[in-house]
Amino acid sequence: MRFFSDNAAACHPAVLEALAEANVLDTAYDGDAWSGRLDDAFSELFETRIEALWVTTGTAANCIALAMLCPPEGAILTHRDAHIENDEAGAPGFYTGGAKLTLLDGVGAKVSPETVREACARVRKDVHQVQPAALSITNASEYGLTYSPDETAALGEACRTLGLGFHIDGARFANAVAATGASPADLTWRAGADALSFGFVKNGGMNAEALLFFTPGHAERARRLRKRSGHLMSKGRYAAAQILALIEDDRWLANARAANAAATALAEACGPDRLVHAVEANELFVRMSPDEAAALRAQGFDFYDWAPGEVRLVTSWDQDMAAVERLAQAIRTL
Amino acid sequence: MRFFSDNAAACHPAVLEALAEANVLDTAYDGDAWSGRLDDAFSELFETRIEALWVTTGTAANCIALAMLCPPEGAILTHRDAHIENDEAGAPGFYTGGAKLTLLDGVGAKVSPETVREACARVRKDVHQVQPAALSITNASEYGLTYSPDETAALGEACRTLGLGFHIDGARFANAVAATGASPADLTWRAGADALSFGFVKNGGMNAEALLFFTPGHAERARRLRKRSGHLMSKGRYAAAQILALIEDDRWLANARAANAAATALAEACGPDRLVHAVEANELFVRMSPDEAAALRAQGFDFYDWAPGEVRLVTSWDQDMAAVERLAQAIRTL
Amino acid sequence: MRFFSDNAAACHPAVLEALAEANVLDTAYDGDAWSGRLDDAFSELFETRIEALWVTTGTAANCIALAMLCPPEGAILTHRDAHIENDEAGAPGFYTGGAKLTLLDGVGAKVSPETVREACARVRKDVHQVQPAALSITNASEYGLTYSPDETAALGEACRTLGLGFHIDGARFANAVAATGASPADLTWRAGADALSFGFVKNGGMNAEALLFFTPGHAERARRLRKRSGHLMSKGRYAAAQILALIEDDRWLANARAANAAATALAEACGPDRLVHAVEANELFVRMSPDEAAALRAQGFDFYDWAPGEVRLVTSWDQDMAAVERLAQAIRTL
Amino acid sequence: MRFFSDNAAACHPAVLEALAEANVLDTAYDGDAWSGRLDDAFSELFETRIEALWVTTGTAANCIALAMLCPPEGAILTHRDAHIENDEAGAPGFYTGGAKLTLLDGVGAKVSPETVREACARVRKDVHQVQPAALSITNASEYGLTYSPDETAALGEACRTLGLGFHIDGARFANAVAATGASPADLTWRAGADALSFGFVKNGGMNAEALLFFTPGHAERARRLRKRSGHLMSKGRYAAAQILALIEDDRWLANARAANAAATALAEACGPDRLVHAVEANELFVRMSPDEAAALRAQGFDFYDWAPGEVRLVTSWDQDMAAVERLAQAIRTL
Repeated sequence: MRFFSDNAAACHPAVLEALAEANVLDTAYDGDAWSGRLDDAFSELFETRIEALWVTTGTAANCIALAMLCPPEGAILTHRDAHIENDEAGAPGFYTGGAKLTLLDGVGAKVSPETVREACARVRKDVHQVQPAALSITNASEYGLTYSPDETAALGEACRTLGLGFHIDGARFANAVAATGASPADLTWRAGADALSFGFVKNGGMNAEALLFFTPGHAERARRLRKRSGHLMSKGRYAAAQILALIEDDRWLANARAANAAATALAEACGPDRLVHAVEANELFVRMSPDEAAALRAQGFDFYDWAPGEVRLVTSWDQDMAAVERLAQAIRTL
Repeated sequence: MRFFSDNAAACHPAVLEALAEANVLDTAYDGDAWSGRLDDAFSELFETRIEALWVTTGTAANCIALAMLCPPEGAILTHRDAHIENDEAGAPGFYTGGAKLTLLDGVGAKVSPETVREACARVRKDVHQVQPAALSITNASEYGLTYSPDETAALGEACRTLGLGFHIDGARFANAVAATGASPADLTWRAGADALSFGFVKNGGMNAEALLFFTPGHAERARRLRKRSGHLMSKGRYAAAQILALIEDDRWLANARAANAAATALAEACGPDRLVHAVEANELFVRMSPDEAAALRAQGFDFYDWAPGEVRLVTSWDQDMAAVERLAQAIRTL
Repeated sequence: MRFFSDNAAACHPAVLEALAEANVLDTAYDGDAWSGRLDDAFSELFETRIEALWVTTGTAANCIALAMLCPPEGAILTHRDAHIENDEAGAPGFYTGGAKLTLLDGVGAKVSPETVREACARVRKDVHQVQPAALSITNASEYGLTYSPDETAALGEACRTLGLGFHIDGARFANAVAATGASPADLTWRAGADALSFGFVKNGGMNAEALLFFTPGHAERARRLRKRSGHLMSKGRYAAAQILALIEDDRWLANARAANAAATALAEACGPDRLVHAVEANELFVRMSPDEAAALRAQGFDFYDWAPGEVRLVTSWDQDMAAVERLAQAIRTL
Repeated sequence: MRFFSDNAAACHPAVLEALAEANVLDTAYDGDAWSGRLDDAFSELFETRIEALWVTTGTAANCIALAMLCPPEGAILTHRDAHIENDEAGAPGFYTGGAKLTLLDGVGAKVSPETVREACARVRKDVHQVQPAALSITNASEYGLTYSPDETAALGEACRTLGLGFHIDGARFANAVAATGASPADLTWRAGADALSFGFVKNGGMNAEALLFFTPGHAERARRLRKRSGHLMSKGRYAAAQILALIEDDRWLANARAANAAATALAEACGPDRLVHAVEANELFVRMSPDEAAALRAQGFDFYDWAPGEVRLVTSWDQDMAAVERLAQAIRTL
């Protein structure tokens, strides 16, 4: 009974079926029929004209986007606990040609317009200091918190006035949509975002993420950066097919809702005192003594030690609800 | 009846089966059971201790290898028609941090030890000129020619004396092994190679290539570069499973033999006068007037115009032999 | 009467004389007689065999050193207020190919071995996090504090056990030597440092800094990086001559002592309550109301507003002592 | 009696005088009075509004310009014998973040619009191939040939229609102006050039070159790249003062004319049979047997062996005309 990561879950059956259906000869790279349907599929989902690129990892999606929005001599503002800062092995520096990550504070790995403005105000407008060029936020955040459309729009407005590009790392964007009940459009381009890394791997996909650009024309250079970074697969239809399978019939949303529901059930079992952060998506950060954690593990529950006295539970699209109930019960009886 | 590219062929059924088998929860990244078997599988195949990394594209495999073998201020010697020069969108420059490709001549996109030595001799040993640091060859070459073990060993010896790292782009390595009848070991580490990009996508895979290091310890940094370039997939087992499926039961070799056999059949139909290069692997470069090409296309055969009066035919692991026979017949009757 | 920066002072007369003497035809780049004497001059000064490169700026010296000590995928530990973080326009990211600066805290822009160890301990030893590769400290620090030989050696020992390269930004190294009374050797290689940016521009030079490597063989690659970054001047003798002029007769030390003495005189006038940091070298950070600052400026004293209620005074090698006395008096009578 | 390189000559006395005059306290970096006069001085010389940056080397000037005109994923077209390809240690790759140099042929290291067009036509307009973004020519060329205003304008027109930026490496621009009798404007912006590296070091300067941008607004980012590459000297006035001293009273032109005249005298002595290239500026490539070269050296003449049976003679602004006459006589009597 594993609550380690949605990263490690199996793929949705529809994804495997889609791969089987795509298992025919077609044009190489992204000239195939499946890849050709991506723009339309996302344009419908986001209620605007979108250019969409498949890539294999969230790191690739994030860093191609950042390279589009920030020149080598610029800085990307992001939260101190952001994935791009802590878990991408310096990929932003690689993709941008040495741009800087300027780290912001904020509860629950969320940033506010004030923090963004203050960070920009601290930078002297001379050639000696690296000038901020973009903001990258994560929705849902690294601690499972979501940005509402209003919060996102306030950040978008700050970016607009400060001349910053605006990127959203949506490794768990589906969970954010499910949690907020907001439309994909309201959480992105209507709020001023330029690019979204829309994660499908944590959502039941195998090895395909989508990188979306909301400004027409941006994708052209991004396609070059994708190729140049080795992310243009020759049999691209297998990536596109996965994404289409998850978009169709709103599977992505159903999957996210299932994961969120499992997390909510666990959050109720934990009660407010144990929870380090509010549980809005599919991650829980739970205060727990080593003895308590050991007791749960002895009952067959696996999870990650996050910090002294704190564990992390992550639920997936396919989390077994019986196991969730057993864990909830076990937590209640600690 | 398409003779465009092995890039665009379908996947081998065993690959899809392997993906289905791997469709269970396991550890993320390359901590899973399938990824853990790669080193052993390749070590057995190559008769030496090997470290193996899966990546999704040949460009990624090539360029991570090049970044390992060449510092930013160095040069990589390679043939003027090499894939890394012509078809990777500048990825070698990106991955190495600006290293230079020094272009060599040679019939059939093959290079000789003499060419390598002369290129090194032309470089002044001062700080003004970029010093050669590595050689990259392609086996089978971009024109479908193969390097024998002896030819490879002669290049390896030149590299050793010149202080060059030695990388082999093996996008069609399986075809080279099938064509030469040589062992993987004799075509690589026994001949002095440091790293091999072992292609599986053109061999019936979906989106997994293997990057092999023959020097113990090299893989550690390469794993960091893989992550840093966004190529460490979170559900890595699906990549490893593909590769294992093709290694098992020597499917990779059977697939390559099938593709090569189809090419040989077409080569015989073409006869020596039409062939620009000897046909050793699965590519044919065929002299053909526009009218002749049009005549073939009118019969339903698809292929690529390579140069004025020259077309390229590529055969795949799953090339329909009936179609091959029909094309052979059509060529004979031109 | 300017107390803005030692950056803007004139050059020592001996420097101009040396330029005039060097104004003859000689071999280009660093093949001339003056450049050829640098290694010996620094080797004598540092009591060990040294390889020395002239460059034109401290940024170039620092960043070539960092590129030598840190791979693109690594991190450089440095103080949050370090010049390489705040005032070099992202040059470390450029020179290293995207390495990360990991920021440390510490009073007076100084770092301690504990801080270094803690920063390393916080990094997971996996491929997802950027691994620390080097430490860069500034002596004298950005706030004019010095590291003693013991403090430096403790940091060197931490670097040794942690596997970190150790770079010292010595833009005001002369001032640190003058302030501590320690030998250049005790403040660098005997304390475990790998490389020193030895600043001469703030010390009476025109446009020449020295980059010193204490590990034999390091300079060879550094010379390539110097050329590749456009810092190998064709008439290098004019750079070497400046440095030699300041080394000869210990002018560098006399100049630093003069600057420090001026600062000390001002520090006494300020008294401990006004001083934000102890005054050990040639910089003063002085608590002062806007009205007080305006009063001083009205008397003809120019200086930099550092922070609300705080001004910075910097003294140079050629600071007019009469003006210093007048400023000291003016501060006393505020 | 040295005919090695104009790189190694002494500085013009006016340059040393200017340094002495600038040897007063002023604002740091490029905020000083001398740097502030550069834009005006060059604007007058080029008859248009110009933004001018001092840097210390031609490599820095060239590569900052290239980084402005070519994105990391682009290609710079240049002659196979260009300095940026052969003698800058890979600096273009470093500054651009990995852009490619696409090498063109052409007699005397000159390129023609046809060559440029053909090179662009050979590139497929897909994401797999690196797209040309800029052209860089050298005037006077690496073999001492000049481009006329018409030739330059034809290249500029080709760049305009092909969407290429247009950079001129003018390490010996003064010699080209002197040789052609054309105006600086006609050789640059009127011909469509975007940026010029205007060399002063070979022209009697010490360590200052000028990087000129003809498109308003370009310099802003270039100033950031200058700082980021460590080329913003803190005492910038000493660089600006050198350049101003050479611009004033048209010293740059007189110096170039003197060097060209010395070369012309030697060219006449050589006669057409010995000359590999026409002698238009201040370089001679002379057919000469090893015995002949040895005979000249025995008489005290120093020069560079360029190729088997070929030597290079370079004359400087301060070439002693008596020595020139003696060498001319010695060549005649070979």
